[in-house]
Amino acid sequence: MSEVHMARRSRLRDRPAADEATAVLVSAPANLRYLTGCAPPGAALLLAPDGRDTLVTRQDGRPGPSLPPDLGDALRVHALPGPDAEPVAVAAGLAAAARAAVLAVEEHHLTVARHRVLAAAAPRLRLADLGCAVERQRLVKDDEEIAALRIAAEITDQALGELLESILVGRTERHLALELERRLIDHGAERPAFPTSVATGRHSGLAGHVPSDLRVEEGDFLTVRLGASYRGYRCRIGRTFVIGTAPADWQIRLYDLVFTAQRAAREALAPGTEYRAVDRAARQLLEAAGYGGALGPAVGAGVGLEIGEDPALSPAAVGKLDACVPVTVEPGVHLPGRGGVRIDDTLVVRSLSDGGPELLTITTKELLAL
Amino acid sequence: MSEVHMARRSRLRDRPAADEATAVLVSAPANLRYLTGCAPPGAALLLAPDGRDTLVTRQDGRPGPSLPPDLGDALRVHALPGPDAEPVAVAAGLAAAARAAVLAVEEHHLTVARHRVLAAAAPRLRLADLGCAVERQRLVKDDEEIAALRIAAEITDQALGELLESILVGRTERHLALELERRLIDHGAERPAFPTSVATGRHSGLAGHVPSDLRVEEGDFLTVRLGASYRGYRCRIGRTFVIGTAPADWQIRLYDLVFTAQRAAREALAPGTEYRAVDRAARQLLEAAGYGGALGPAVGAGVGLEIGEDPALSPAAVGKLDACVPVTVEPGVHLPGRGGVRIDDTLVVRSLSDGGPELLTITTKELLAL
Repeated sequence: MSEVHMARRSRLRDRPAADEATAVLVSAPANLRYLTGCAPPGAALLLAPDGRDTLVTRQDGRPGPSLPPDLGDALRVHALPGPDAEPVAVAAGLAAAARAAVLAVEEHHLTVARHRVLAAAAPRLRLADLGCAVERQRLVKDDEEIAALRIAAEITDQALGELLESILVGRTERHLALELERRLIDHGAERPAFPTSVATGRHSGLAGHVPSDLRVEEGDFLTVRLGASYRGYRCRIGRTFVIGTAPADWQIRLYDLVFTAQRAAREALAPGTEYRAVDRAARQLLEAAGYGGALGPAVGAGVGLEIGEDPALSPAAVGKLDACVPVTVEPGVHLPGRGGVRIDDTLVVRSLSDGGPELLTITTKELLAL
Repeated sequence: MSEVHMARRSRLRDRPAADEATAVLVSAPANLRYLTGCAPPGAALLLAPDGRDTLVTRQDGRPGPSLPPDLGDALRVHALPGPDAEPVAVAAGLAAAARAAVLAVEEHHLTVARHRVLAAAAPRLRLADLGCAVERQRLVKDDEEIAALRIAAEITDQALGELLESILVGRTERHLALELERRLIDHGAERPAFPTSVATGRHSGLAGHVPSDLRVEEGDFLTVRLGASYRGYRCRIGRTFVIGTAPADWQIRLYDLVFTAQRAAREALAPGTEYRAVDRAARQLLEAAGYGGALGPAVGAGVGLEIGEDPALSPAAVGKLDACVPVTVEPGVHLPGRGGVRIDDTLVVRSLSDGGPELLTITTKELLAL
């Protein structure tokens, strides 16, 4: 893998805004992982103008849980002795020593306090903002990244499928969430991609519901949202079921509406489509049905090393989809006091000639009565 | 609870460095929770010079999972419509409108980018650093906080106790960790206080070990580290066991050494003791035995709304313990390739006349052969 990371660092070094006097300092954990394969706590990666890459860590530099053995020869590890040394400050000193004139840092990640320590460590260095250059580079995924996402989705579908075969009535949201997480691990996830959400009855359809001691009852809508992380790559699935054999009319109507909106957003996914157009495809259907206010701020977002990374598929987002960008499509409607529906999928944007959007989370979206 | 939070906000407003022209902006999540009882993502709390407290959130302001119903009349909620509004910037505008001259912000939490947006929103406001004023206020816990920690520790002891009664040989670290987390929830934890670590054989004794697919074998050292979060308050226990009936000589010697060092640090806990003296008590014993390099950067740290909050019990820490400060004592030694021992407890500092340090995590520290 170290060649992949080296190539990514070269691309960052060769970014359009780059010049020879500018060194780059990366500190956001997902960006570190993308560029080196690891993200030790508090570490910083320096790309110096002399072509040398240095990972400054607080650890002892030996391979371990957060420092893999295959960092490659092209990446030096500079390990700091104690907890008080600040990796970003040491990296700034290295940049100055390598005759950089400017150091571009991640201002959206560095705190004001760390930025000040960094500035004091290399007073003659001019500090600039790298902005989201690494995040932008992460938008379009390569084949290996998409392969990891496919496996993450497969694990997720398996975990969810097993749950559907078990008895649900009488069990609490909390226990169902834990069981789903256990099944994710059973099938090879390194961890859940995000905290598993199980929401029954009046909680169903809520976006960020934290599982409670509420028990599943006959007639409930049950919303589950889960995802596996595999080799750092995270996906999301969300499904809503009816408990018992006969969904009520309002449940069927609400489900059909959310399903139709979700399908519209999925079908809007294509290279060249504006981010906001994907949101609009779902949002206008929900608004027309009187549920516009129930929809969250975005109908979906990019996934990869993070859940909810760029792009946001929201009304205010500016930009167009590219091929090989994996995103979620996750509309939902929650009616206070009654419950609601969420349906989430992870897909990869593909051109029509490549078969259109590739659905990674393939569990059925029929309204199952469990 | 809202009176408790109001009293805490009053104390922050009346802090020694305060003056009448200075408004305070709190953004670190644990500090928000301490001062309001909740911490919606991205929210900011403004204590204006006119005595009004406002929580600026990105949510709709209705009670929900992250916004409890009992915020109290003394706290206004200012809910922003969309995801693009920046709560800290809106709060800065409110501070300016309330005729503050200075706004003290948490520079150790705010990113450079958020700080810039905030400054642009209220250009006539002078920005200052609040520093760790709230963290300092959180150091000494009140009775309710300590009661929550006691329950968290009780839950943790129960979960660990049940694991010890089950068969361990042949099971993977990952599965044991998941089972421990399930048991924490079973006994009433809202969530694990931190990712449960299970480390067997050559992994045992590592501080931050992420559970792997390695299976527990006869003769292994097995280190488990877990903790419950109860009402937001987090504790930590760590124990090391031997699998099988006859620990090897090196295992007995290493265990006795770590146990002796851990006891020395526990016994050093008293009001007025320097933080570094607690570290030294354990460290000098390990150094004398030739394992000084194996010890991490600190022998323990404060616990409360966070694991590893202030104070750090480290060689470089400056300050003295107070009564009613809960801390962990968690030394460990890991021998590469062989394994090692960690023993972690959560205790509350008490004066001798109050019976000395109060041990919250009461699971035995004898070397059990399981």
